[in-house]
Amino acid sequence: MRALAKTRPGPGLEIIDTPIPAPGPGEVQLRIEAASICGTDGHIYTWDQWAAENIKPPVILGHELAGRVAATGAGVTRVHEGDLVGVESHLFDGTCSQCRAGQTHLCRNLRVIGAHVNGGYAEFVVIPEANAVESNGLDPAVVALQEPMGNAVHAAFVEPIAGRTVAVTGCGPIGLCAVGIAKAAGASWVVATDTEPYRLELAARMGADVTLDGKAGDTTQAILDATGGDGVEVVLEMSGAAAALDSALRFVTRGGRVSLLGIFGEPVTVDLSNLVIEKGVRIYGVFGRRIYDTWERTQDLLRSGALDVTPILTHRFDLADWQQGFDLLGTRHAGKVVLVP
Amino acid sequence: MRALAKTRPGPGLEIIDTPIPAPGPGEVQLRIEAASICGTDGHIYTWDQWAAENIKPPVILGHELAGRVAATGAGVTRVHEGDLVGVESHLFDGTCSQCRAGQTHLCRNLRVIGAHVNGGYAEFVVIPEANAVESNGLDPAVVALQEPMGNAVHAAFVEPIAGRTVAVTGCGPIGLCAVGIAKAAGASWVVATDTEPYRLELAARMGADVTLDGKAGDTTQAILDATGGDGVEVVLEMSGAAAALDSALRFVTRGGRVSLLGIFGEPVTVDLSNLVIEKGVRIYGVFGRRIYDTWERTQDLLRSGALDVTPILTHRFDLADWQQGFDLLGTRHAGKVVLVP
Amino acid sequence: MRALAKTRPGPGLEIIDTPIPAPGPGEVQLRIEAASICGTDGHIYTWDQWAAENIKPPVILGHELAGRVAATGAGVTRVHEGDLVGVESHLFDGTCSQCRAGQTHLCRNLRVIGAHVNGGYAEFVVIPEANAVESNGLDPAVVALQEPMGNAVHAAFVEPIAGRTVAVTGCGPIGLCAVGIAKAAGASWVVATDTEPYRLELAARMGADVTLDGKAGDTTQAILDATGGDGVEVVLEMSGAAAALDSALRFVTRGGRVSLLGIFGEPVTVDLSNLVIEKGVRIYGVFGRRIYDTWERTQDLLRSGALDVTPILTHRFDLADWQQGFDLLGTRHAGKVVLVP
Amino acid sequence: MRALAKTRPGPGLEIIDTPIPAPGPGEVQLRIEAASICGTDGHIYTWDQWAAENIKPPVILGHELAGRVAATGAGVTRVHEGDLVGVESHLFDGTCSQCRAGQTHLCRNLRVIGAHVNGGYAEFVVIPEANAVESNGLDPAVVALQEPMGNAVHAAFVEPIAGRTVAVTGCGPIGLCAVGIAKAAGASWVVATDTEPYRLELAARMGADVTLDGKAGDTTQAILDATGGDGVEVVLEMSGAAAALDSALRFVTRGGRVSLLGIFGEPVTVDLSNLVIEKGVRIYGVFGRRIYDTWERTQDLLRSGALDVTPILTHRFDLADWQQGFDLLGTRHAGKVVLVP
Repeated sequence: MRALAKTRPGPGLEIIDTPIPAPGPGEVQLRIEAASICGTDGHIYTWDQWAAENIKPPVILGHELAGRVAATGAGVTRVHEGDLVGVESHLFDGTCSQCRAGQTHLCRNLRVIGAHVNGGYAEFVVIPEANAVESNGLDPAVVALQEPMGNAVHAAFVEPIAGRTVAVTGCGPIGLCAVGIAKAAGASWVVATDTEPYRLELAARMGADVTLDGKAGDTTQAILDATGGDGVEVVLEMSGAAAALDSALRFVTRGGRVSLLGIFGEPVTVDLSNLVIEKGVRIYGVFGRRIYDTWERTQDLLRSGALDVTPILTHRFDLADWQQGFDLLGTRHAGKVVLVP
Repeated sequence: MRALAKTRPGPGLEIIDTPIPAPGPGEVQLRIEAASICGTDGHIYTWDQWAAENIKPPVILGHELAGRVAATGAGVTRVHEGDLVGVESHLFDGTCSQCRAGQTHLCRNLRVIGAHVNGGYAEFVVIPEANAVESNGLDPAVVALQEPMGNAVHAAFVEPIAGRTVAVTGCGPIGLCAVGIAKAAGASWVVATDTEPYRLELAARMGADVTLDGKAGDTTQAILDATGGDGVEVVLEMSGAAAALDSALRFVTRGGRVSLLGIFGEPVTVDLSNLVIEKGVRIYGVFGRRIYDTWERTQDLLRSGALDVTPILTHRFDLADWQQGFDLLGTRHAGKVVLVP
Repeated sequence: MRALAKTRPGPGLEIIDTPIPAPGPGEVQLRIEAASICGTDGHIYTWDQWAAENIKPPVILGHELAGRVAATGAGVTRVHEGDLVGVESHLFDGTCSQCRAGQTHLCRNLRVIGAHVNGGYAEFVVIPEANAVESNGLDPAVVALQEPMGNAVHAAFVEPIAGRTVAVTGCGPIGLCAVGIAKAAGASWVVATDTEPYRLELAARMGADVTLDGKAGDTTQAILDATGGDGVEVVLEMSGAAAALDSALRFVTRGGRVSLLGIFGEPVTVDLSNLVIEKGVRIYGVFGRRIYDTWERTQDLLRSGALDVTPILTHRFDLADWQQGFDLLGTRHAGKVVLVP
Repeated sequence: MRALAKTRPGPGLEIIDTPIPAPGPGEVQLRIEAASICGTDGHIYTWDQWAAENIKPPVILGHELAGRVAATGAGVTRVHEGDLVGVESHLFDGTCSQCRAGQTHLCRNLRVIGAHVNGGYAEFVVIPEANAVESNGLDPAVVALQEPMGNAVHAAFVEPIAGRTVAVTGCGPIGLCAVGIAKAAGASWVVATDTEPYRLELAARMGADVTLDGKAGDTTQAILDATGGDGVEVVLEMSGAAAALDSALRFVTRGGRVSLLGIFGEPVTVDLSNLVIEKGVRIYGVFGRRIYDTWERTQDLLRSGALDVTPILTHRFDLADWQQGFDLLGTRHAGKVVLVP
């Protein structure tokens, strides 16, 4: 079968021809219908320091997946041939303290499909049955999107959001999901910030009440003014930009909360005394998705019609044209880019 | 001024003529623009056992109020003449253990405006400044509705509701509010039950995905069937009917939660072992509104446009025609009835 | 090997001779060092209605277990031969909504070791590796006690308990654990109630500040008096007695919480309006133990020395003398009874 | 009366003679029995930048107070002449969003007794009745200590602590309280870190299972080793030292929580991506005490005997000898220093 892989250390990816994997006991084989590109894939493609330290080629990439069950291994009972499924990309060991305490998303020995084991930029992938999330009836691109959207759901729902004012800082695909999730969950006012007008336009389409371009003015003051000086009750930080975080800690209200999801390229200097301690702010580091509680919430939002994510799905390419998709990432003029094998 | 009062023990109410009350220090005088009828008013009108034990005539009734600030006493600074305000009807002592711990809505020495002290079925009422909640720009009937709607917000939001399945049992005005609140807060599916088709029609207008008439079939089975046997994750019990609660405990999912707000006329027999303990269900007794946190949430839902409560406001009468309003209560063919002095 | 089994429907148990079970893949074989008697075993012994509906003989009983790993099946890596382990007695399917959402203790298809599959009133038992909880260094009787003690930990810790006043109603072995747990967790005052002085004496030894005999006076009034009229903030209901629950709802403070763990023999009549709704009380149905988060908390309390459970371990018999142990259950003059194969 | 005041901008304090203040309506006059020195007093004494920006002389200092009610103003009913009371030092406006939502400790217009209004380094002080917390029967030095101890209670109890491993970083008086609180609340293991052996000795006396001198070795590795590589579940950061925080974020377990209470002298550089986001860590900025919920918890711990704070009360001086007390602060060879007018 055809697959997109990192075949050796160094920049670049390549299409390879490789045998179709067969499911072992407790595993399912999926025929991929959609596989979307994550920023992490970009890091592996360009082979930055993080990638060099964490990825051992050869490996087929692709961890935001929609596939149809093509074959099942021994003992598989929950999913059936023909089911359309999304994929939880994290493989946990089930034995560390975190797993035993029900925090499997924080497993100490986490492995990731499409990074540490072969992923789904391919015609077929094999995954554990447990990681297959039944998604019949949804559009395959939406099914694939559930994985990164789950991060946004996780970040948004660490505390209640209904009837609260919300800022989403950073409008990449996960930030755009967060805007939609906040509105669907009854946030009373959602402001979205970014430095790229293309993305802010998408944020508006996802329901943001106000969008602010950080390059065009003082975001902090604008949000304080719009909230009568109080600031917002909830910040969903999706940018990984130090300046955005500093601003967020200034415009979050006293006693508010900040979910951190965007990855910062380096350590960040924070005025903890004045902006966190004296303001009584709670900060949540958010990683992955609660397995599988977040998936239930995510599907419920999608299936109920409370949330329409189609504005985020801006581009779609054949797997063979993967280069075009990866090139778009750098431009920041794309929502989510989907590859179709 | 003209006012509607319980003047002596026994059934009935009467319109009286009484001096306009003047605000003391820390108090505000409101000119009433809307005052809606609560079920509690019905109990006082008919003078049942509860009323006989709790109400000491003479007293002017009316605790769901919208008024415009007409005069202010010494030391009043937060609200201003001309402000339209809603009224928190509960007066707490501020000194009991509950109040000191921030649970003022559960004050051990609670007094209620329109029950223990003169209320707002009148041209004017005087209340403590703290109890006046600025509501400029809202329709006066909506302003008055905030008080009972706050109970529904309180009941709905004791735990997160976004992306969850919800049943509202009982579609009186507070139940109807609860339907709208659940939808606005991102509930993935809302089923409403009642035994009165008129009310179920209103529930549908408030956004219920499904309405079920308890007289027309087996509600429990219908909800289990609709949820693939799982049952719903959240029950908002607004009926005060023992049969509805028994059904609710059968169709709530294992690990789900039930908010109890509807008042039961007598003790209720519950299969705690099989339906609460073995299922790991949480039950919340909900009383009043968190003061004033619930008001913030309530106003945010209203002002953001996330929730439109106008379908609930079915009838409006001049205060002189109060009898027509009270007569409607018994028919169950009304949403919320508003009196206008 | 020798084992104590229910061999056919009807009252009674009998010692049988049966082959030593061998571990399959993912399973471990334990040589039992201690197996304590639970009230559930008593129901199976006497063959009441619950037992007749739920138990399919033949089955070896025993689900409160301490065993040493004697052999391991293929793929077992976490526990090792010679390890002393406690046993989580609940087997969950891992695929229902509850399991997928991390609520495995509320699995819709729960099976119980020693009830639905062979248990540990025997020289050997085979269990899934996951259910074996490493307990090296603890006394075997304490290791076995971890299972019921986990229920008490679960009930106590659904909300914080430090610096709060606590009542434990019912001083069977789990109630006695609850007394000790509450004290170890910083409860400011613990009152224990029962109707059997023998048990109250044990409660005092577990650290109860006050013990009250329900047959000797008005427990409700005594607790209200002792708390200045406020009542207690936390109730841990371990009796399964309707009168104890009614009393508890009267002496719990406004805004307090009640954990229900004791099983009521039949539906219970509760004054929900006055005692739950108007008081803003939260009721938690508590079933089993959080798997395995509760085990971590339980072991931490035991290993840290914060909690000494030895007063609860009042009797120990050879498995052959099981009848003496079961006879003690009915007398209520025992803490926990341990059988040693 | 005699009082210790900051009389003009610049370093130093002086004893002044000033009229005894009389209580107005709703106020109580206290005769001070103990007033302990806080680090904040040190900042005002040395007149650093923070003091210059926030303090407007003349003002009598002293906000950790124990006093006996000497006179009461009109309308005072809760406390009585002769009562020994502790003092909540924060004055909130009651009208801002935070106050209305029950977060009075985060009031946007907070004023502090002994900083913005006259405090209790004096023979008498006048405070609002609400701020007087009845403390009859406790030692006056303990009564005064309740204020800073409340900060530690607040920091410790933002999440449950029973059966969890805890690190307290920084063993000043509040850190020492935190050690004792964690042990009293059932923490399974408490490690305390500091760079001053005198303080670590006090931490051991407060019950720390292990004390680690940051100058004597690698604290991070030592804690990881002691916890089998997992790290601790709870960090109570009381040092305000950037290096301690960095270490804490390395030895906190994945999914753990960190309460920040120690004030950092300047912004801190934090590796948010690797140490907070990827580890799923929660950070709580903790300010002041929940008014008055924290006081209830604090008193319950003290009165129940669960916590003995006397090791912290290392020094006591007559108010006239205030200079000796302030000199001790700089040496770090003191627990809490108490002044007696």
